[in-house]
Amino acid sequence: MDSTLYESTLSDLKDKIKSYPDFPKEGIVFRDIFSVLRDPACLRNILDLMVAKIELLKWTDVDVVVGLESRGFILAPLLAVKLNAGFVPVRKKGRLPGVCKEIAYTLEYRSDVLEIQQDSIHQGQRVLIIDDLIATGGSLGATCKLLSGLNANVVGCLVLLELEQLHGSKNVEAPVESLITF
Amino acid sequence: MDSTLYESTLSDLKDKIKSYPDFPKEGIVFRDIFSVLRDPACLRNILDLMVAKIELLKWTDVDVVVGLESRGFILAPLLAVKLNAGFVPVRKKGRLPGVCKEIAYTLEYRSDVLEIQQDSIHQGQRVLIIDDLIATGGSLGATCKLLSGLNANVVGCLVLLELEQLHGSKNVEAPVESLITF
Repeated sequence: MDSTLYESTLSDLKDKIKSYPDFPKEGIVFRDIFSVLRDPACLRNILDLMVAKIELLKWTDVDVVVGLESRGFILAPLLAVKLNAGFVPVRKKGRLPGVCKEIAYTLEYRSDVLEIQQDSIHQGQRVLIIDDLIATGGSLGATCKLLSGLNANVVGCLVLLELEQLHGSKNVEAPVESLITF
Repeated sequence: MDSTLYESTLSDLKDKIKSYPDFPKEGIVFRDIFSVLRDPACLRNILDLMVAKIELLKWTDVDVVVGLESRGFILAPLLAVKLNAGFVPVRKKGRLPGVCKEIAYTLEYRSDVLEIQQDSIHQGQRVLIIDDLIATGGSLGATCKLLSGLNANVVGCLVLLELEQLHGSKNVEAPVESLITF
């Protein structure tokens, strides 16, 4: 994809993402990716733009694409198929069977625990982490630590949206890239 | 895909799905789709087999693919891209912004509320519903009712796994098809 087409497609996408002030609570502006995913052309463009970005970053050579529950589940398998990789989920505690590794992390007002199946990633496998959005970077940072604990090689994290003023990538030990910043 | 290849690929997939007795609670055998999604060849085969099934059923002409939170989010967008359709989520109450339509439904031991964004589907649009699994059919049945309330035309529901002895499709007003039965 040439860079003019990339930029114009991206700008069109950003314009189409609806914003909802004070959702889910006062003071938060919710950026709704579902407002674009429902449009077949936008869905296809998001996938094409993410693949173009991954190629630019030279992150194509990965064994596994990890997606975070639950909106990361939407984009990660699409990219896994494109990159000929497998898909592995990171989920809230208690939802995955078998032996799991867990990590607790703190959000603004509460803490949460994420889990991954221990046999889902082998030592040294190259991993790309996908999520819809990075805000404070809590869940992405925790996911990176979880994967380091399995001796995986996290190539990077790619998200669709980045809330720039929160500087979330500071809390993530792997490189974080985004398509659209707000 | 010819029918011999279809059957052998399917049988290989079924063999590779790990089962966990007594998860998440006693008496339930959990069939773990993540044990196959992590394998690049299996992930690609699942997608190819679902597309082949959709072609066989003549369900290819759809405007929207609806996925149920959260494991339906994995497969629905993959099929939406293949079918040149949009992706629309059905989520647990409180997670979608904007005006939503909701439906309450009863599970074995509890009740739950599902929501869809009102402007996500237009009257008369052809909809394919995707989920990972049908057990008692509670959430799929509720999703069909939610979509009927928006005057959508539900072509059918396709799931990866069906727990046959629970006869869940009886609780769903649209046709239900599955790739693999247990």
